[in-house]
Amino acid sequence: MATSDKASTRDRLLDAASELFYRDGVSIGVEALCRAAGVSKRSMYQLFASKDEVLAAGLERRLPAYEAQLILPEQEPGTPRERILHVFERLEKSAAQPTYQGCPYLAALVELKDPEHPASVVARGAKDWMRDHFRALADQGGARDPELLSRQLMLVFDGANARAGARVETLDGLTTDTVTLLLDASGLA
Amino acid sequence: MATSDKASTRDRLLDAASELFYRDGVSIGVEALCRAAGVSKRSMYQLFASKDEVLAAGLERRLPAYEAQLILPEQEPGTPRERILHVFERLEKSAAQPTYQGCPYLAALVELKDPEHPASVVARGAKDWMRDHFRALADQGGARDPELLSRQLMLVFDGANARAGARVETLDGLTTDTVTLLLDASGLA
Repeated sequence: MATSDKASTRDRLLDAASELFYRDGVSIGVEALCRAAGVSKRSMYQLFASKDEVLAAGLERRLPAYEAQLILPEQEPGTPRERILHVFERLEKSAAQPTYQGCPYLAALVELKDPEHPASVVARGAKDWMRDHFRALADQGGARDPELLSRQLMLVFDGANARAGARVETLDGLTTDTVTLLLDASGLA
Repeated sequence: MATSDKASTRDRLLDAASELFYRDGVSIGVEALCRAAGVSKRSMYQLFASKDEVLAAGLERRLPAYEAQLILPEQEPGTPRERILHVFERLEKSAAQPTYQGCPYLAALVELKDPEHPASVVARGAKDWMRDHFRALADQGGARDPELLSRQLMLVFDGANARAGARVETLDGLTTDTVTLLLDASGLA
């Protein structure tokens, strides 16, 4: 294959993996994956050692869009409190979509069980990135205990992801109300 | 089969289903399930129409133990606040076990995706039961907005279940600290 063909085959595979994985779960088969991507199994195995590697790379490819969807860009004006609340406003907005099934990284961790799976490693990285984002904002906003606040925000973030994704909660402002209470209690400006 | 043999075959199947489902996820095969239970596939299909039905019945069989593990029995003394905190103390204790993989009902909902799957129906029932338990205690304790408080408690409960189960959080009192804050803010006695 020419280099550009390889790149396009790889992208098609990873996009299909992200989409199917999200919609149907980690047990999707190689056949279904290759069919959805319009790629032969032979081509897949030329690019990746296993389906596990495709899942991991698919989650990784999705990261920049995931981050951009949730956080206020650095160059936009906003206090630490506004930046934290922005994440939850975006989460609530996503969760109201009919195709919403929760955070793909949390789902990967719950489904894969194995912390050493290459896709679990990527997913844990996404969770740590979010917690670090909250932690930095908690520091900047002068929270009394920035570490505690960032962990509390992650409980609410992943609780909402899991419950709205599982359709046992509709949110409707629940996370922003709860987060406001946590921010006030932490003394955040 | 005699009636008592049927009962024991059924129990063995459901116990194996609960255990494997929890440890390895919903994609466990019928072969592996029957092998673990020491039951033939023929016997399984005499008792259940499908693997999905076995999963649902396995989750249902586990419910009384799940509830007993989390809640303070009615006859034990305890204020609504103590009863709510008891749930989180028990959750923190479970989550510290090396075999902990989160709440089996939340995991089922995340993994199955389909809200109509018979096991999803059982899992949603378990989640609603917990929320109703919190709601009743919030009413008894005179919370200003019992419905809001019960939903906030479920966010923390499932956020902790998901994050500790995925090994991205160790808890160590995080939920009891956070819940105390929510109870105080709600005006619960």
